[in-house]
Amino acid sequence: MFKVNENYLKLPGSYLFSTIGKKVSAFTQANPDKKIIRLGIGDVTQPLAPAIIDAFHKAVDEMAFADTFRGYAPDLGYEFLRSAIAQNDYKARGCQIDADEIFVSDGAKCDSGNIQEIFSQDNKIAVCDPVYPVYVDTNVMAGRTGTYDSVKETWSDVIYMPCTADNNFAPELPKEVPDIIYLCFPNNPTGSTITKDQLQEWVDYANKVGAVIIYDAAYEAYISEDNVPHTIFECEGARTCAIELRSFSKNAGFTGVRLGFTVIPKELKAGEVSLHSLWARRHGTKYNGAPYVVQRAGEAVYSEAGKEQLKKQVAYYMNNAKYIYDGLKNAGYEVSGGVNAPYIWLKAPNQMTSWEFFDHLLEKANVVGTPGSGFGPSGETYFRLTAFGSYENTVEAIERIKRL
Amino acid sequence: MFKVNENYLKLPGSYLFSTIGKKVSAFTQANPDKKIIRLGIGDVTQPLAPAIIDAFHKAVDEMAFADTFRGYAPDLGYEFLRSAIAQNDYKARGCQIDADEIFVSDGAKCDSGNIQEIFSQDNKIAVCDPVYPVYVDTNVMAGRTGTYDSVKETWSDVIYMPCTADNNFAPELPKEVPDIIYLCFPNNPTGSTITKDQLQEWVDYANKVGAVIIYDAAYEAYISEDNVPHTIFECEGARTCAIELRSFSKNAGFTGVRLGFTVIPKELKAGEVSLHSLWARRHGTKYNGAPYVVQRAGEAVYSEAGKEQLKKQVAYYMNNAKYIYDGLKNAGYEVSGGVNAPYIWLKAPNQMTSWEFFDHLLEKANVVGTPGSGFGPSGETYFRLTAFGSYENTVEAIERIKRL
Repeated sequence: MFKVNENYLKLPGSYLFSTIGKKVSAFTQANPDKKIIRLGIGDVTQPLAPAIIDAFHKAVDEMAFADTFRGYAPDLGYEFLRSAIAQNDYKARGCQIDADEIFVSDGAKCDSGNIQEIFSQDNKIAVCDPVYPVYVDTNVMAGRTGTYDSVKETWSDVIYMPCTADNNFAPELPKEVPDIIYLCFPNNPTGSTITKDQLQEWVDYANKVGAVIIYDAAYEAYISEDNVPHTIFECEGARTCAIELRSFSKNAGFTGVRLGFTVIPKELKAGEVSLHSLWARRHGTKYNGAPYVVQRAGEAVYSEAGKEQLKKQVAYYMNNAKYIYDGLKNAGYEVSGGVNAPYIWLKAPNQMTSWEFFDHLLEKANVVGTPGSGFGPSGETYFRLTAFGSYENTVEAIERIKRL
Repeated sequence: MFKVNENYLKLPGSYLFSTIGKKVSAFTQANPDKKIIRLGIGDVTQPLAPAIIDAFHKAVDEMAFADTFRGYAPDLGYEFLRSAIAQNDYKARGCQIDADEIFVSDGAKCDSGNIQEIFSQDNKIAVCDPVYPVYVDTNVMAGRTGTYDSVKETWSDVIYMPCTADNNFAPELPKEVPDIIYLCFPNNPTGSTITKDQLQEWVDYANKVGAVIIYDAAYEAYISEDNVPHTIFECEGARTCAIELRSFSKNAGFTGVRLGFTVIPKELKAGEVSLHSLWARRHGTKYNGAPYVVQRAGEAVYSEAGKEQLKKQVAYYMNNAKYIYDGLKNAGYEVSGGVNAPYIWLKAPNQMTSWEFFDHLLEKANVVGTPGSGFGPSGETYFRLTAFGSYENTVEAIERIKRL
């Protein structure tokens, strides 16, 4: 008799954003006349830039003729895209990353979920608390996290690194030595960043203790301050301890287009075994590449026109971020983030829990945000708003919140 | 110190098609003047049908405007596509499959590799021999297959069901009871099929012993004979024992577009736990949906114009299949497949091994095929040719082989 993967059954409740979706949909059905404004899930709202649309159409046209039709893509992504990435995201910043150290994929969510698979089951992970739920949940599914304490809302075999107002939302080096360290900067959900010097400390620590850092830089396009690193490979020694995850979702609006990449330097090894070769094997065996037309659209992100247009798109969202930040601050809320990131992290007022504030905002202001506790115990009483709405909706949402 | 997933290191050599790619590329570099004809990897060559191109362009245009732009897709796929699938692939054949039992994905390779994850690690799998390598390799990566015998080229904890000329390339019920049974019909690599009565025996067996059948029907569009089932859900009782994998790669030329789906009926349970809910959880946590534009292109496959155009595309490839089959048969080869499948399975002549014949064909006829032994020990001395080339190349390849 077949049996199921029991680790799945240990997962408490459903995925955070599915729960939010269900709550919102129940509220909408009960209140069809209310206009909901969604500043919850990190989904973008601005259309694809003209340079991307043009590249997309051109690639679709190629698929219409036998002599330009493309079938299976190369396992690790098309050379044209990997070269553009290596040049623009790394070499232009003085980082030594080659095109063949880049693995093109259908997005950073998939990569951040799948990457744990190339590691031993008994490796111990360290995560920031609060944290993007995918890092923890996928390790739960793999049986790497021990038992769940439903009161503390923590796993016995996970090292939690609290990020709260006390440490300015920057994790401290853990007391217990981890094997795998997940870091995400600019941070989801808190919108905080760390400086290049601070990140260098993590790289030095990882090299010293033999840990690997899985560095999620999905939000790097939102960095506005000079001393904040855009990639972990700006740090010396990162090539022997770091994997970087990147996304086209937030810098180019690809949430519904699906494109991302993972960088694994060839020096990153456990003994003789390179993680690059293991991830290549995974790609070759379990994946079949991102669509050709999507990879062409991704290439356009690095064209001169694309860069220009996307700079404006990011500025548009960052203007929203400023509006949210200033509006809430002036209204007396305790707020952080929003300067180098599209997320604003606020403290729920009047001793409300995160979910109480979620319900309160949904019912009284018809605004959807994300409860901080959904990202981990240290997120309790916090709340995330995103800058990815339209300007008009953002303004209206903040005005509604101010009137509460 | 972090450690790697040791199961990956047990995998012998690299993925079959990567090895072929490297051999062909070495030959091409050494012989730049030779015109290689590729009838190896199952990649299509005909361009996308006009109805699909139109739908693609229309969807790309929608992404260019804020009011029609689409971000994150619903976890399990857009309703418009799931409904079209349920209606056309199931209800129209009298099979009771609902839209919400369909999970849209980026292809059957990914699904066939990932599906094992929802099962217990100690479940025992049964596979046909020869078999599509992904089924076995992904179970190796998950630590489910025991130790490798490099002489026999088999895994200690896998049940192999030989498919040879002796049993007309149809597997027999295994002596040892498996937990998970992988079946693929029309078969890759042999091109063989089984009748509806034969498949019903498998469904009855699975229900009796409590096994689950993972049924890969990626090639169903190539079925030309009446008594061959298009889906396992034509069989009574399949809803309590079967998962079906489907692809848009071969019926609509989506190898480079990436779209597929998996069907899990809600009755399929281990005790109280439905596999549907586990797969939904995996989708929600580790995946972010197929691109909107690709799902719209997939919808066009089911339009009246799309159906008409794709019927011709399948007929084009099946004409190639007939040409290969007849040509080789008349030249004295032992051939099978090619009637309900785009694959022709032939016996290597003169006691050659599969790889000897591969090298022979590559060097003497500049034709690339796939060595049968790459699909399992019972594939040794066999060889696979695909009908997915252009008609002109197919004719030339067969003429070259005849001249050997």
